[in-house]
Amino acid sequence: MPIIRSVTREYIGKPIRCKAAISRKSGEPLVIEEIELEPPKSWEVRIKILYTSLCHSDVTFWKMNPSSPAAMFPRILGHEAVGVVESVGEHVEEVKEGDLVVPVFLPNCGECRDCESPKSNNCSKFGNERTVDMPRDGTSRFRDMNGEVVHNLFGISSFSEYTVVDVTHVVKIRHDFPLDKACLLSCGVSTGVGAVWKVADVEKGSTVAVFGLGAVGLAVAIAAKQRGASKIIGVDLNEDKFEIGKRFGITDFVNPSTCKDKSVSEVIKGMTNGGADYCFECIGLASLMEEAFNSSREGWGKTVIIGVEMHGSPLTLSPYDILKGKTITGSLFGGLKPKSDIPLLAQKYLDNELNLDGFITQEVDFKDINKAFDYLQQGMSIRCIIRMDH
Amino acid sequence: MPIIRSVTREYIGKPIRCKAAISRKSGEPLVIEEIELEPPKSWEVRIKILYTSLCHSDVTFWKMNPSSPAAMFPRILGHEAVGVVESVGEHVEEVKEGDLVVPVFLPNCGECRDCESPKSNNCSKFGNERTVDMPRDGTSRFRDMNGEVVHNLFGISSFSEYTVVDVTHVVKIRHDFPLDKACLLSCGVSTGVGAVWKVADVEKGSTVAVFGLGAVGLAVAIAAKQRGASKIIGVDLNEDKFEIGKRFGITDFVNPSTCKDKSVSEVIKGMTNGGADYCFECIGLASLMEEAFNSSREGWGKTVIIGVEMHGSPLTLSPYDILKGKTITGSLFGGLKPKSDIPLLAQKYLDNELNLDGFITQEVDFKDINKAFDYLQQGMSIRCIIRMDH
Repeated sequence: MPIIRSVTREYIGKPIRCKAAISRKSGEPLVIEEIELEPPKSWEVRIKILYTSLCHSDVTFWKMNPSSPAAMFPRILGHEAVGVVESVGEHVEEVKEGDLVVPVFLPNCGECRDCESPKSNNCSKFGNERTVDMPRDGTSRFRDMNGEVVHNLFGISSFSEYTVVDVTHVVKIRHDFPLDKACLLSCGVSTGVGAVWKVADVEKGSTVAVFGLGAVGLAVAIAAKQRGASKIIGVDLNEDKFEIGKRFGITDFVNPSTCKDKSVSEVIKGMTNGGADYCFECIGLASLMEEAFNSSREGWGKTVIIGVEMHGSPLTLSPYDILKGKTITGSLFGGLKPKSDIPLLAQKYLDNELNLDGFITQEVDFKDINKAFDYLQQGMSIRCIIRMDH
Repeated sequence: MPIIRSVTREYIGKPIRCKAAISRKSGEPLVIEEIELEPPKSWEVRIKILYTSLCHSDVTFWKMNPSSPAAMFPRILGHEAVGVVESVGEHVEEVKEGDLVVPVFLPNCGECRDCESPKSNNCSKFGNERTVDMPRDGTSRFRDMNGEVVHNLFGISSFSEYTVVDVTHVVKIRHDFPLDKACLLSCGVSTGVGAVWKVADVEKGSTVAVFGLGAVGLAVAIAAKQRGASKIIGVDLNEDKFEIGKRFGITDFVNPSTCKDKSVSEVIKGMTNGGADYCFECIGLASLMEEAFNSSREGWGKTVIIGVEMHGSPLTLSPYDILKGKTITGSLFGGLKPKSDIPLLAQKYLDNELNLDGFITQEVDFKDINKAFDYLQQGMSIRCIIRMDH
């Protein structure tokens, strides 16, 4: 399909009026409205969104109880996307008008101790606890037609024809990269791949257990398969996920609801001669993190936490199990440094070393964005791509 | 002092009568008695102990409530030692009469998946949960003069002039290695050094926090100093440990009882610009393990559990902290494989790259072994060497 990647220069320095899908009330369908978007301030980039996709985190914030401190309405959701730079604010030299960029929820300032260290992707200058509005001044660039502020998500808000993003959250990619695949690199798929390739560093012949077969879990599977894992066990309550998972490298399946009198970890230990070499928790439940840890092998078993715990529950582990050589670690965004690692993943795709094709299960036009929410909630979707209709 | 390293061949294949220090009742002074020791069975080695030393674990088993499943009386304690092989059982080819050997509580069969993997020291053929009697048949080789069985500790029982140890628990070292230093490599000091060099792999310039400045914690300090750590913070309730610790590389000190309204982790974060790169728990308290984890830096902070949790308490962590790139791991015996790594540590000592001299604070004759218990319990001792009086 034709997508206009060109940008007009006529709005540089001025507000843009465009369409955005606004979440006005918790859990209610998004409403496509006209909004006004300010020009980028210093260190900011205004982006014409071309494609965006729906991630579970968007649904979490969409459904969030309005009394939660992180809930903000009205708000423009969306954080997986690809777009073209329309204009840049002062001090922005890294990208220029016309560049193809992927926005990322995780900042990468390039200057702090963490960004400078090969061991961290936890930018300590900008942090990762902020979920709303712009990182430098805490305000939003969006207003609705009544002049009311419309809030941001993760400083991205890609469910809009145009958005403004801080330059620390923007990654430039090759101009010829396929746009729908580019969205996938923006969050979930990269997270799963990074967790396997960078955090766990899975070796050939390893046994792997993946807890939760959403997009992140399936990305774990495909990355483990690429590394030559000998057994990749998927764990999911949805039995259909086994057939889906096979396309991504899942070789075995455990449905916790059919384990009878055994725990999932007992079943996995039985399948792996004592425990999996690597376990990945991709849901965000402390109890499942514990089950993942218990499923890992003594001696060298490594458990990687990827999911964001959704109930605020603590993680309870046996110190004796740790003494037997087990490790538990975790990261946001699969331990990847957005600015240097997303281009590497993009190149892996172009070199046929990372298959992104199976992740896209639906495509909808922007006007039908609520369908994407339906698909994901009905378990019908891995990733639904939303085409902006510029 | 002269130590007779020679052995007589006259008892080969026969029982030996010799002196041993027997723990007959929980917490009561050891009694030196004559015992009878069987010859080694298949895969076993009979050792003439030359030097032994007292470790906190000995005290734990000595004081253990008799109703505890791991408590066994009468018992011969002791597991840090060096000795000379008196005779070997069938199938033993690795050592022969006259070899100088160090016994180790951790088995190393050399054949199982764990022993064959560079990633594990958790011998899966013999395991590490057994604390009593011989690994292959579960019986003791010791009897007292009434013919009653005297139990073993960790399959070592070095508080005896002679003992029988399975060959998987025996490490041959250079015949010219200093005997008192050899004891140190048998358990506690190796554990601390291995945790730093092998498990954490501490780099030059790192910040390190050590929780508990006993022999293991001081070994962590000396190993971190050897690696060029820029700051080595000791944490101990005993204020005197700062002066002692300085000799081992401790540069800064935190006494939890004088932190006032701050937690230890808050104090350490303040001293390290956000948290230590590496934290080591050397006591065995879940609450202290949590404090160590909380003291570690986001982004790449690694916490290594060395202490064996003494109350059976679980470890409770925040999954969000893990997501920010923190790791928690652990090992027995510092992740070292006894048979290959103890000789490497011995060579480091001979090459002046590992200073073992400061660990020995007292020496006593075997007949005065109860003094060693007094010194350790009074906090006066790092390691007290016990000389056998052959």
